Amino acid sequence: MANNKNIPCVVFGASGYAGVELAKMIVNHPTFSLEALFVSEQSSDANKLLSDLYPKYKGLLDFTLVPGGKANIEALKSTLSGVDQGLIFLATPHEFSHDIANSLTAINITVLDLSGGFRLQDPDLYPEYYGFAHQYAGQLSDIPYGLPEWNAHNLKDKALISLPGCYPTASQMAIKPLVKSELLTDQCTPVINAISGVSGAGRKAALATSFCELSLKPYNLFVHRHLPEICQEVGRKVIFTPHVANFDRGILATIVMQVKEGTTLEQINMAFESQYSDKPFVRLRSEAPHINDVAHTPYCDLYWQLNGTDLIVISAIDNVLKGASSQAIQCANIICGLHEGLGLLPTSQTQGAI
Amino acid sequence: MANNKNIPCVVFGASGYAGVELAKMIVNHPTFSLEALFVSEQSSDANKLLSDLYPKYKGLLDFTLVPGGKANIEALKSTLSGVDQGLIFLATPHEFSHDIANSLTAINITVLDLSGGFRLQDPDLYPEYYGFAHQYAGQLSDIPYGLPEWNAHNLKDKALISLPGCYPTASQMAIKPLVKSELLTDQCTPVINAISGVSGAGRKAALATSFCELSLKPYNLFVHRHLPEICQEVGRKVIFTPHVANFDRGILATIVMQVKEGTTLEQINMAFESQYSDKPFVRLRSEAPHINDVAHTPYCDLYWQLNGTDLIVISAIDNVLKGASSQAIQCANIICGLHEGLGLLPTSQTQGAI
Amino acid sequence: MANNKNIPCVVFGASGYAGVELAKMIVNHPTFSLEALFVSEQSSDANKLLSDLYPKYKGLLDFTLVPGGKANIEALKSTLSGVDQGLIFLATPHEFSHDIANSLTAINITVLDLSGGFRLQDPDLYPEYYGFAHQYAGQLSDIPYGLPEWNAHNLKDKALISLPGCYPTASQMAIKPLVKSELLTDQCTPVINAISGVSGAGRKAALATSFCELSLKPYNLFVHRHLPEICQEVGRKVIFTPHVANFDRGILATIVMQVKEGTTLEQINMAFESQYSDKPFVRLRSEAPHINDVAHTPYCDLYWQLNGTDLIVISAIDNVLKGASSQAIQCANIICGLHEGLGLLPTSQTQGAI
Amino acid sequence: MANNKNIPCVVFGASGYAGVELAKMIVNHPTFSLEALFVSEQSSDANKLLSDLYPKYKGLLDFTLVPGGKANIEALKSTLSGVDQGLIFLATPHEFSHDIANSLTAINITVLDLSGGFRLQDPDLYPEYYGFAHQYAGQLSDIPYGLPEWNAHNLKDKALISLPGCYPTASQMAIKPLVKSELLTDQCTPVINAISGVSGAGRKAALATSFCELSLKPYNLFVHRHLPEICQEVGRKVIFTPHVANFDRGILATIVMQVKEGTTLEQINMAFESQYSDKPFVRLRSEAPHINDVAHTPYCDLYWQLNGTDLIVISAIDNVLKGASSQAIQCANIICGLHEGLGLLPTSQTQGAI
Repeated sequence: MANNKNIPCVVFGASGYAGVELAKMIVNHPTFSLEALFVSEQSSDANKLLSDLYPKYKGLLDFTLVPGGKANIEALKSTLSGVDQGLIFLATPHEFSHDIANSLTAINITVLDLSGGFRLQDPDLYPEYYGFAHQYAGQLSDIPYGLPEWNAHNLKDKALISLPGCYPTASQMAIKPLVKSELLTDQCTPVINAISGVSGAGRKAALATSFCELSLKPYNLFVHRHLPEICQEVGRKVIFTPHVANFDRGILATIVMQVKEGTTLEQINMAFESQYSDKPFVRLRSEAPHINDVAHTPYCDLYWQLNGTDLIVISAIDNVLKGASSQAIQCANIICGLHEGLGLLPTSQTQGAI
Repeated sequence: MANNKNIPCVVFGASGYAGVELAKMIVNHPTFSLEALFVSEQSSDANKLLSDLYPKYKGLLDFTLVPGGKANIEALKSTLSGVDQGLIFLATPHEFSHDIANSLTAINITVLDLSGGFRLQDPDLYPEYYGFAHQYAGQLSDIPYGLPEWNAHNLKDKALISLPGCYPTASQMAIKPLVKSELLTDQCTPVINAISGVSGAGRKAALATSFCELSLKPYNLFVHRHLPEICQEVGRKVIFTPHVANFDRGILATIVMQVKEGTTLEQINMAFESQYSDKPFVRLRSEAPHINDVAHTPYCDLYWQLNGTDLIVISAIDNVLKGASSQAIQCANIICGLHEGLGLLPTSQTQGAI
Repeated sequence: MANNKNIPCVVFGASGYAGVELAKMIVNHPTFSLEALFVSEQSSDANKLLSDLYPKYKGLLDFTLVPGGKANIEALKSTLSGVDQGLIFLATPHEFSHDIANSLTAINITVLDLSGGFRLQDPDLYPEYYGFAHQYAGQLSDIPYGLPEWNAHNLKDKALISLPGCYPTASQMAIKPLVKSELLTDQCTPVINAISGVSGAGRKAALATSFCELSLKPYNLFVHRHLPEICQEVGRKVIFTPHVANFDRGILATIVMQVKEGTTLEQINMAFESQYSDKPFVRLRSEAPHINDVAHTPYCDLYWQLNGTDLIVISAIDNVLKGASSQAIQCANIICGLHEGLGLLPTSQTQGAI
Repeated sequence: MANNKNIPCVVFGASGYAGVELAKMIVNHPTFSLEALFVSEQSSDANKLLSDLYPKYKGLLDFTLVPGGKANIEALKSTLSGVDQGLIFLATPHEFSHDIANSLTAINITVLDLSGGFRLQDPDLYPEYYGFAHQYAGQLSDIPYGLPEWNAHNLKDKALISLPGCYPTASQMAIKPLVKSELLTDQCTPVINAISGVSGAGRKAALATSFCELSLKPYNLFVHRHLPEICQEVGRKVIFTPHVANFDRGILATIVMQVKEGTTLEQINMAFESQYSDKPFVRLRSEAPHINDVAHTPYCDLYWQLNGTDLIVISAIDNVLKGASSQAIQCANIICGLHEGLGLLPTSQTQGAI
């Protein structure tokens, strides 16, 4: 029954932009129940209400931010032991996720990690891209990657799921159908130019993201940690240049690729349609999306144009939702055997699902 | 039962910012059903999908905008005849509402007019403030004014409801508790300084609201059409200065008043609490609200500070929601005997209501 | 001769928004010469170029930010000793100005303090409004207040000038003509509602001014430190509510006042025109100014409307320029016997001045 | 002598964003004199003051916008006949420039066309990219292209100069040094991703550029009229995707190219330095520029990173200045034998030039 909120959920890192969205979606979800919100033990937000940090949610998210000390985490685990099914979301720093994830896995509990702590299968890449050596190298290739339009079949009955990064989500949604359909030339190196809203930098005081200092700029040329993640998942080299600009939410990626001689527009259309026509969070658009078409939505909007053998694909998502939190809820729904869109789409679109 | 969408709803003026919000809330409402969306017969938007105008809602609001010619309106009325209960929302220009509202009233149908066509009880004010002479002068004092926190008892079984303006909503929510509690001095003329987002100007091409031209400015000093509406409803003269600024959504009103000698903060607190403590859309805040605390929400946030006999009240709403569309849905819920927050608040907060 | 840059200038606090504007105006000034830029000894900006902090000014402001330790300041004073005329600008925290200003005064040197360290004549107000006890109480009433449209006659041959605050500049420019012309009623308490750009908060990392967190809000109701300054200068109580909003630069103040029975619009026009018609930085407008009309300009734009005995005056300035740095240069020009607009207005408007 | 304003200048299309900047720069220029400002005969701006449209410039640009009817233009030509040197700037629609430019050329007068009316040397491209057939095909290859960092030697003693487009300016400044130094591979197709501020759309009422509708979006994929212009000037095919985003001014172009095997960073540095080290409006940056580093400046900021044989160059300009108006003034200075930066850079940087 739709209002039987019987799957307990816990969010670590609840005070950040991804965390608060997770909390909101869980509270509004017909089946999930918000059990606890954790922040780091030293956080100045500890013991505050989440709605003190986000007064927009006064009356909705008046939940205490529990400091994540050992005792509190043990109490949580004891509370969760014995449930039929439970979900722990980690919206935490990469290294924190790396350190804690395995200690949280338990019978009937799935840990969904929104950080990059387990995204790369090659452990040798962690020191360069994440600044720490990975302690669970042997585990990496077994951890499912939570891009549900591609890996839904692989998410159930797992202890730990690694959610994609925001740029990789936008990029893969555009490139993978072409790779799968073998339409790209062998030499094609996709050129990904992506522009993110400021929320991508997280919730913190920093001169670089202060209102008067921030304006459109590229950053981390050739070295962004999402680069190896994209390459891993699309199976080829890409050139990826991230930018940040003066808007709050969303990523728009403009991706230039070369298709094989003789490739028709119909073949490209088919590549996207065959993969996505039954996917509720993908909208194949007949006009280029604006970033505000997807901001504050769980959708990925895709649009493409072919000119000779040059193909441009535009992919737009909300960086905090499809790029993080709503994608995690999508995965959680799948894990729990629910309609993928439950709690994310209008009831009329998810009925008959449970 | 919650998903029995059996109350047909129609929106006139569906292509504007208030109209699209109405459509969205009706579609997401457990009991309301979206029957038709009308635009003016000459509109260039006629026969398009609402989601063509607002691609953000692709997949959600793929409803045709019906041109409001005579035949189509007659067909609508015939469709609605015989329903147990139906709702027609007018998000139309003032004079259009004035002209059409009475022709749409019918047995078991309530017309909710979001325009200013029926807000002022004194017909003599229409030529000056609205640019037309009112043809239904005798009717004006009988039309309920849809500010539900104050007039909920008066909304049922009426053919026509007039919804408040956006600035008047923000202003009244702040001033009326003090008037009711008789805390203001007799001479007190509230000074209302209000700042609105650009959406208040409506959806249209105009140099004044173009991205490069618009910046914070005051306008319509002493002559805004919301001025007589506020005076009418708070029962005294006010000085009202509207401003527009470079943000999308919301109104923040800063209101300076004088309370009687000896008035205590506790008396003021009590004035607000006694009126609003059981009202789900009013949040009495312990800190001054930011506009983004209420933007894209159905709430009115109120905050006040007393200094001697000087009182400042801050009132913040979303101009398109609590200032127009969500307030209309609030009224519609009340009219239909439903929980005031149905379709507007999380299910958990409206349960047991139906 | 216009390009004889023979008046040495020094800026303390050069890394902030007011400091960099001072540096730019001095470099572009035909008579002033930039001698040194100081930052606090502990500043992480020390020994950087100013243009490293503000890459917009690469090639123009490639000046080293000298750490303001004792030795460096002594060296400066030795350099300046013996000049015919020199100027030291303090764009520093209030208490730092308070501590250092007197040690910098010297023969032929004028210190222009942009902080609030010497603005209030009543020393008893400092602990409450500035958080420190004033050590130079006896000096306060003798320090000229650098609002040049009103005090130009009083600025020459002074060791120390105190520049007005940004809100007080906007407010006084609107209120003082009416006070001087005795048009306000005795009971009139001007209600000042002012909205500032984010630059008013200074250049620093802070969550409150981060791009994703900041939106229109009121702050410091009844307690802003500019309140007693305004009262002092207009000679009556005012009610002052500052706001910050999501734009970079500018202040727009909307001020409601009551004029005496029978006051005509012509009398009000005359009050402004008689005071300002020969003032190059005041523009009496026939339409309400937008904030972008004055942003990045040295002007104060004024506009008013009378309705019965209710008067609304709109005053708009750039908070960093007319509210701080360009006003300081205006004063500096006057102090040096130059045309008030030198280096601020086009050459054609300041010719024949030197 | 610096203040001998003896070169008369006229601006057609003075009411647009490029036009008002031209007017401002001419008024502030030591040698140029603003003779007249024209708008189209039917313009609703005709006979207004330029400062009525741009109140920011009240007191500075109080010049009448002359309707460009036959009589007024003849009067202008008669006024200009006999001058030693004069400049006519066309900030007009492409086809208008095409129609009128030749009729305005006269002895000692140079016409500087900021439109695209004469940019493409291949007349066959005009119908597709500009929507009209070119009547002066034979003339096209002789008209100098006013990118002064590359064509300064070719601008003098010409009747008509064609100024580059905004995107082509940003793109060429980045690509041409590499082409000239023969560092790109033969197969390299530069991929240009560029993001422009809204001012690029011109000053007009349009839903697409209204504050509430506009957000980051790509547009005109594969078909923008600046595409053939870039290809023409860099001598190879490029893939160019323009975007517009919610900021006022500036273009940031991110350009991905392949250099020949073995190319060193030093060779690339040398390619840029040898071309630009003596160019006052080019800043070779050691960090990626932000758009606000160049907004409201006449500079082009360039930055690059090499990774193997992949090269990313970032090029940033103000679209209205270096992309239009200040570039035209740069050319005008060169045409008149003045220092390139006169009226654009601080006096100290242009001294000894005249």
